[in-house]
Amino acid sequence: MTNTLTVDVNCDVGESFGAYRLGHDEALLPLVTSANIACGFHAGDPSVMKKTVRLALQNGVALGAHPGFQDLVGFGRRDLAVSPEEAFNLTVYQIGALTAFITAEGGVLHHVKPHGALYNMAAVNPALAEALAEAVYKVNPEAVLYGLAGSALVQAGEKLGLKTAHEVFADRTYQENGTLTSRRQPNALITDPHEAVQQVVRMVKEGKVRSQQGVDVPIKADTICLHGDGTHAVEFAQLIRRRLTEENVSLQPFSC
Amino acid sequence: MTNTLTVDVNCDVGESFGAYRLGHDEALLPLVTSANIACGFHAGDPSVMKKTVRLALQNGVALGAHPGFQDLVGFGRRDLAVSPEEAFNLTVYQIGALTAFITAEGGVLHHVKPHGALYNMAAVNPALAEALAEAVYKVNPEAVLYGLAGSALVQAGEKLGLKTAHEVFADRTYQENGTLTSRRQPNALITDPHEAVQQVVRMVKEGKVRSQQGVDVPIKADTICLHGDGTHAVEFAQLIRRRLTEENVSLQPFSC
Amino acid sequence: MTNTLTVDVNCDVGESFGAYRLGHDEALLPLVTSANIACGFHAGDPSVMKKTVRLALQNGVALGAHPGFQDLVGFGRRDLAVSPEEAFNLTVYQIGALTAFITAEGGVLHHVKPHGALYNMAAVNPALAEALAEAVYKVNPEAVLYGLAGSALVQAGEKLGLKTAHEVFADRTYQENGTLTSRRQPNALITDPHEAVQQVVRMVKEGKVRSQQGVDVPIKADTICLHGDGTHAVEFAQLIRRRLTEENVSLQPFSC
Amino acid sequence: MTNTLTVDVNCDVGESFGAYRLGHDEALLPLVTSANIACGFHAGDPSVMKKTVRLALQNGVALGAHPGFQDLVGFGRRDLAVSPEEAFNLTVYQIGALTAFITAEGGVLHHVKPHGALYNMAAVNPALAEALAEAVYKVNPEAVLYGLAGSALVQAGEKLGLKTAHEVFADRTYQENGTLTSRRQPNALITDPHEAVQQVVRMVKEGKVRSQQGVDVPIKADTICLHGDGTHAVEFAQLIRRRLTEENVSLQPFSC
Repeated sequence: MTNTLTVDVNCDVGESFGAYRLGHDEALLPLVTSANIACGFHAGDPSVMKKTVRLALQNGVALGAHPGFQDLVGFGRRDLAVSPEEAFNLTVYQIGALTAFITAEGGVLHHVKPHGALYNMAAVNPALAEALAEAVYKVNPEAVLYGLAGSALVQAGEKLGLKTAHEVFADRTYQENGTLTSRRQPNALITDPHEAVQQVVRMVKEGKVRSQQGVDVPIKADTICLHGDGTHAVEFAQLIRRRLTEENVSLQPFSC
Repeated sequence: MTNTLTVDVNCDVGESFGAYRLGHDEALLPLVTSANIACGFHAGDPSVMKKTVRLALQNGVALGAHPGFQDLVGFGRRDLAVSPEEAFNLTVYQIGALTAFITAEGGVLHHVKPHGALYNMAAVNPALAEALAEAVYKVNPEAVLYGLAGSALVQAGEKLGLKTAHEVFADRTYQENGTLTSRRQPNALITDPHEAVQQVVRMVKEGKVRSQQGVDVPIKADTICLHGDGTHAVEFAQLIRRRLTEENVSLQPFSC
Repeated sequence: MTNTLTVDVNCDVGESFGAYRLGHDEALLPLVTSANIACGFHAGDPSVMKKTVRLALQNGVALGAHPGFQDLVGFGRRDLAVSPEEAFNLTVYQIGALTAFITAEGGVLHHVKPHGALYNMAAVNPALAEALAEAVYKVNPEAVLYGLAGSALVQAGEKLGLKTAHEVFADRTYQENGTLTSRRQPNALITDPHEAVQQVVRMVKEGKVRSQQGVDVPIKADTICLHGDGTHAVEFAQLIRRRLTEENVSLQPFSC
Repeated sequence: MTNTLTVDVNCDVGESFGAYRLGHDEALLPLVTSANIACGFHAGDPSVMKKTVRLALQNGVALGAHPGFQDLVGFGRRDLAVSPEEAFNLTVYQIGALTAFITAEGGVLHHVKPHGALYNMAAVNPALAEALAEAVYKVNPEAVLYGLAGSALVQAGEKLGLKTAHEVFADRTYQENGTLTSRRQPNALITDPHEAVQQVVRMVKEGKVRSQQGVDVPIKADTICLHGDGTHAVEFAQLIRRRLTEENVSLQPFSC
């Protein structure tokens, strides 16, 4: 008897706004297993949310809320000095707004993944991490909390008894302490798609990643983040899907 | 055996925003039976919403969503030419956002009452009315739809099988066709509190209101709207509560 | 000695926002003579405005402010029931914001053209038209007011002593009273580019347009509006430029 | 012949928004010599701006722009990780918007003072400080830049050749290096109004302040910031005005 290895592949969708179009949702959704849907603060609007929920359901992917800072002009990517209580409140609000569209379309909320600066801040700030985890727990204790692998966010979720998914990045390099190389460093990004895919395969199959310092570090890879906004996003999604399948890794939404 | 006459008394709350304070929520909530909580579009923000939901639960009133146009500077009072689909989407979004706070605090959503220009437009525009009723139905078919007595909005709700509450106003005068006198007319408002209360008592007990044309018109009074932003809002709430009690009308949240 | 006929060709630019890109500013600006730059309410943001002002100056076109309703999600295209005073204030605000970028880059403000629903409402509502004209006059009495040819807006500008430019549309049909055919009518748009250009040439050279009712109506064509958001916007701009040149019409920014 | 000592007293005004009222502008403006007017990002809206500009002109005070982060719900008090270029752009935008209202009312812009988190960040971040100073310089090189006494912001202004005003606080304590005691420390605030006024008088007359460490430190006091949102704001303004007059200090808008 053999165990089949499985992994989730997620991407951010529903980032259009009003007259503005962004991303390749139609092309990417058939290639992933779970979708993080913008909730109207850093991107998305009510009309985009309804359309995106429908599209995700049609593609049979797991639906996630993707709450972010209320900073549309900065796309939620700029650090904002919110208190833990403010972080709790903005997360509750956005989970609720998305859940209503999911309910209206007959689906269920599968997970919550904070966006951008909120994600990064909660990865290293335990008070913020606990506030976000509690927001998920209070609104929907069955939802999975997605966070950076090994981060304060997933730790806060585990402490509360939430299901948590450790997230890894195909195209980012890692440090020997298991953290991502800062984007301010020269080697933060892996630009060769084959090298990126190879890193993913090893993280999933061996639970290890080769750090920038040359030593292997252990890493938990429950879900892989694909970036949806690059010009080669779709090709890369196809490549990663093909390679994982070749390696007998089954792609499916995270469940513990 | 006697039937006790009952009526609901509702008011708008949670209209503060960030550093800005508005209304007399603490003083009014003990005096009403249901509360319409702003959802962050025309007023309110996530922190105000959480606080208001808690306060309403502590006062034992029924909790309602109060969705409005995304026009904070205009307080949702300016007509905006939305399509029915846009109206559906903004209503779903806001009901969901508020429901999440109610869920987090252990309560249940009781009703939905559109705010300001959205309320007025849906009272006379059947397509908009149907969109709002459908939004409530799709997100929470158990919620009561509050709308102007006899309006297109309550008709749309009834058609869908929603519970609906016909709303009357203490301080507004009526026309012989049962509509409110336009605020552009000189006699739109009843400024004498005793006269206003007397009109309410008659609407509730006799199902009639004396129109500006001097003839009585039939009116259904399931719920009475109190305005919370005036300087005498609290005194008026006390007066109406006392008079209704004297008339053996029991105040309780609407249920059909 | 012969008089050279001249006409202005304008287009809307600077409509990107944050991470969102919209329009074909780089390709269109070399083909027009004046540019209407979004001012951050219906589209545009401070960073986009600076970049767009620079780009317009590099292309030697006349710079105009393009104020609209504060309705980003609706792109300023939805009627909003503002009072004349509100319209005055939002116009002053946006002219000022754009002027600061123009000043910072060493240019001068040439004109003001309201956007979308604000443009359409001011074309038929004299009180709104007067408020907009007064806003321009109070902030910069040298600026030209662009409005629909023959509309209440240009009339209000003329009454105040402002320079005004009557605007015509290449791709819209006209009624025998000189107004545009409503977009709700089947023949509102001219889809054949050559027919559209031919209409423009006649409006400019003869001051006439053939109405949908089959009779010629007089029209003043000081400036031609090109739409920048279609897929064929650039080709159409090239075509209209070539044809006008062939007809010995000189393209230059409006000046009276 | 004697030199009269002069000092400027400024306060933040125009912080209302839409239906929301904040501050005591009518009562404070007769008591100060310059006013910092919110520009619609962290507070204020176009209608409030027009009204506030008029009120300030009627009171004969010097008019200043008070640009802040686009964070209405946080009142511009939360640090936001903007780039220097973004800080430049949002400052240009807001100076321009306010200037248009001043122009429309026949006044002139006297100064620019950043608000809240933007003020605090620019006090210690030289790149941000230079961006703000350059924004003022490019839009209006005659405007005075107000900043924390001795901060990076006033240094950046001086470097560019701008007029700068060193600002001191009546109700805050100072450290021996001349900086304000952090609000996170227990003794950050002076709660006794007479002690606060005494500190001001000494800063103005002697150019010194007694630090929390017990030693005097030199400080430049060109302008005194009064907080306008407290319950005793007006009484304190009257007190400081009376005491400075008794000390033969003349109150007038800053000019170098």
